[in-house]
Amino acid sequence: MISVADALARIREGLTPLGAELISLADAYGRVLAEDLTARRTQPPFAVSAMDGYAVRAADVAVLPTRLKLVGYVPAGGRHEGTLGPGEAVRIFTGARLPDGADAVVIQEDTEASDGTVLVHDTVGAFGPGRHVRQAGIDFVEGEVGLKAGRRLSARDVGLAAAMNRPWLMVHRRPRVAILPTGDEVALPGDPIGPNQIVSSNGAALAALIAASGGIPIQLGIARDDGATLKTMARGAEGADLLVTIGGASVGEHDLVKSALGEIGLTVDFWKIAMRPGKPLMFGRLGATAVLGLPGNPVSALVCGMLFLRPALERLQGLPGDGPLPEPALAGAALAANDGRQDYLRARLVRGPDGAWVAMPFEKQDSSMMSALAGADCLIVRPPAAPAVPAGAPVDVIRLSEGAYAL
Amino acid sequence: MISVADALARIREGLTPLGAELISLADAYGRVLAEDLTARRTQPPFAVSAMDGYAVRAADVAVLPTRLKLVGYVPAGGRHEGTLGPGEAVRIFTGARLPDGADAVVIQEDTEASDGTVLVHDTVGAFGPGRHVRQAGIDFVEGEVGLKAGRRLSARDVGLAAAMNRPWLMVHRRPRVAILPTGDEVALPGDPIGPNQIVSSNGAALAALIAASGGIPIQLGIARDDGATLKTMARGAEGADLLVTIGGASVGEHDLVKSALGEIGLTVDFWKIAMRPGKPLMFGRLGATAVLGLPGNPVSALVCGMLFLRPALERLQGLPGDGPLPEPALAGAALAANDGRQDYLRARLVRGPDGAWVAMPFEKQDSSMMSALAGADCLIVRPPAAPAVPAGAPVDVIRLSEGAYAL
Repeated sequence: MISVADALARIREGLTPLGAELISLADAYGRVLAEDLTARRTQPPFAVSAMDGYAVRAADVAVLPTRLKLVGYVPAGGRHEGTLGPGEAVRIFTGARLPDGADAVVIQEDTEASDGTVLVHDTVGAFGPGRHVRQAGIDFVEGEVGLKAGRRLSARDVGLAAAMNRPWLMVHRRPRVAILPTGDEVALPGDPIGPNQIVSSNGAALAALIAASGGIPIQLGIARDDGATLKTMARGAEGADLLVTIGGASVGEHDLVKSALGEIGLTVDFWKIAMRPGKPLMFGRLGATAVLGLPGNPVSALVCGMLFLRPALERLQGLPGDGPLPEPALAGAALAANDGRQDYLRARLVRGPDGAWVAMPFEKQDSSMMSALAGADCLIVRPPAAPAVPAGAPVDVIRLSEGAYAL
Repeated sequence: MISVADALARIREGLTPLGAELISLADAYGRVLAEDLTARRTQPPFAVSAMDGYAVRAADVAVLPTRLKLVGYVPAGGRHEGTLGPGEAVRIFTGARLPDGADAVVIQEDTEASDGTVLVHDTVGAFGPGRHVRQAGIDFVEGEVGLKAGRRLSARDVGLAAAMNRPWLMVHRRPRVAILPTGDEVALPGDPIGPNQIVSSNGAALAALIAASGGIPIQLGIARDDGATLKTMARGAEGADLLVTIGGASVGEHDLVKSALGEIGLTVDFWKIAMRPGKPLMFGRLGATAVLGLPGNPVSALVCGMLFLRPALERLQGLPGDGPLPEPALAGAALAANDGRQDYLRARLVRGPDGAWVAMPFEKQDSSMMSALAGADCLIVRPPAAPAVPAGAPVDVIRLSEGAYAL
C-alpha cells in the first residue's frame, strides 16, 4: 500500500497536459489557458473621468469657490475637441475621455451650473492634478500578460480577456474519459433488475464529476464479471485520454480488471492505497490511454474520484492537479486515534458560536451509504496514525459543497 | 438608497421559481429538483456482506478456533441457494447477498480454507450476529424521500438518484437571461474600436456567470446610447425570464435605460443601493420579463452580478437565493472606518501561520480595474458604518475562487 500523497504524485507524473484548441471567448468559462494571454489594448487607453462632474485644470480650483466657463460636454464614448484653457471647464461623465489640457475632475455634487458657467463650491476637499481621473493603463497596458497559461478561466477572467480584446483563446483540450463500471450485481437505473442485483450509481455520479471537472464523459455501459466481456468493452476507450474502471478489483479470488486488461496490454503502476474509504485503487496505462481503476463501493468510488480522478483531469487540462486543498475547521466531536490508513470522515459543516467552521462527523461511516455522502458538507481528513483529539480540536477538512460563490 | 439585504429581499420577492421539465439523470448535474425524489428500491435490498470472507452463523464461531464445512460460494450478484445449517460456512464477497441462515461474516484474513472446510482462527475479535453485514435498508428504504425538492444536484446526489432507480427527474427549467450592455463607448472584442472607445467586457463576463449559475445566456448585442435603439433591442428579451441591462444608468443628465424602457412599460421597484462598488442598481419588470439593471463599471457589474443576479437565477431555479454566505477570515491589514455604503474590498486569501484564512486587501480598489478583480480570491465585506479595525481582526469575506472541491 502506498500513501495518498504518493499515489497522487505518481498519477500526476504519469499524465501530461493535452494539446490545445482554439475556442471563442463565449465558450471560455472554466477552460484552461494554453498560452499566456497578452493585452492587445491599454486599459483605459486614455485618461478618463472616474465620476460624473466637470473636467478642469486643477490649478483653476486651488482657491474656492470659483466660477469657470463651460466650454464643452463629453459623454462616455465622446471627446471634447480642442484643449481646455485657463478658467474653462467641460461637463464630463464617468468613463469619458478627459479633454486635453484638463488634469482633474470636480464631482457634480460640488458644483452649480448656470448660464454657460459652473460654480465650484468650497466643499471640494483635498484636490490636485489627477483627482477623480483614471490614468491611461491603470488596469493594464498593451503587451502585458493579463492571464497566464495554465489558468482556469473564471467569469472575471473572461471579462478581463474581453477587455484585453481577445475574442479567441487557445485552451487545453477537454479530456475524453471513458467510464466502465463492472459487476454482475449492478443494473442501470430503469433497466430490469435481477433478484440479487442493485442499481448502478457510480457511472452516473462519476460522469457528473468528470463533466464538472472539465472532462467529457463517455459511458461504455456495465461490464459483466468475465474477462472476455471486459476486454471487448474496454475497446470503447480507444481514442479516450483516460479509462476509468469501477469495481472488479476483487471478484472471486482474483482481480478481474487487472488480469483481463493485462491480457490486452495493461501496465499497472500501483494498486493499493493506505486510505479509507478506498484502498483498491489502480493506476496504469493501456496503449495511449491512461487507466484509473476505482473501487466499487459508491462512497469509495466518489471519494477516490475526488482525490485522484479530478486531479488527473486537472493535470490533463494543464492545471497543477494538486488535489483538494484542506481547510481549517474544529472537530465537532472527539475523534479516535487513527490506524495506518488516511481516513476521510463524512461530516456536516456548521458555523460555531465564535464564527469558526465546526465539522460534525456522522456516526455511521459505512462506505456503501450514498445517502450519508450526499448529505455531507465535508470530509474530515485524519492522517495515518493521527492521535485521538477532543471535540473542539483543529482539524483539516475538504469541503464538498460549494462554499465559494464562484465568480 | 436601500441596503444590500433589502435589495436582495425585494429581488427574491419579485421572482417566483420557474416551471418544471423532465430530464435524464445523465443531464441532472447542477439542476434543481422540482419534486421530492423517493426511492424506488430499498438499498441494500437484502442483507449483504461488507467484506470478502465467509458467511457464518455467529453462534458457530462463539468458541475459537473452529472448523466449518464449506457449502457454497457467493460472488456479488449471486446467491447461495438453500439455508446455512449449523457448522456450515459459505465463501462470500463484498456486496454479495447473505445466505439464508447466515447472520455474520468472518473476514478472510482470519481464516484458512482447505479440503472443503474453513478454519476460523481466534484472531476474529469481538463477534456476534450482524458482524461485517450490511442490513437491508441501511442506506435508504423504498418510498423514502432521498432528495428533496429545491435541492441543487451534486455529483453525489446524481449517484444517489441512480441508486434510488430514478432515470428521469423533474427539475426547474433553466432561466433564459437576455444580456443588453449599453453605451457608445464600448465595442465588442475583435470588432473595430473607435478612438474614444474601450472593449466591452461585461457582456462576456456576465454570460459566463449566468451559465455557471444555471441560466441560459442570450446576448442581445450592445445598445448605443439612444432611446430608440434601446427600445428596439430590448424586444430581443421577449420570452426571456430576465433581462439584464448594463450601464446606461447615468448617461448625460438622465437615466437612459430607465426612461427609454419606461416608454414601453418598464415598472421600477428600486433604483439605488448603499454599496461600493455598485450603487446604481435597478430592479423592475417589463411585461412578463423581470429586469435587472447593473452598473456599467466592470467591477461593479460583476460584484452586483454575484450579489444580486446569481441569487435571482437561484430563486428562478427554485433555490433560496440567499446570496453568498460570508465566511470567517482575519484582516490582513488595518481597515479604515466605513461610511454609509456596504463595501466589498477586493483581497487575496492566504493561510496564516496558525492555519486561519487571512484576507489581504488590495491597495487599489478602483471599480474600473478588471485585472485586480480577476486576481482577487475574495471580497472583504465592510458593513455600513463599520468601525476601523487593526490587522488580525476577524472579518467576513465572500470567496470568489472555488475553495470547495465540488463533488
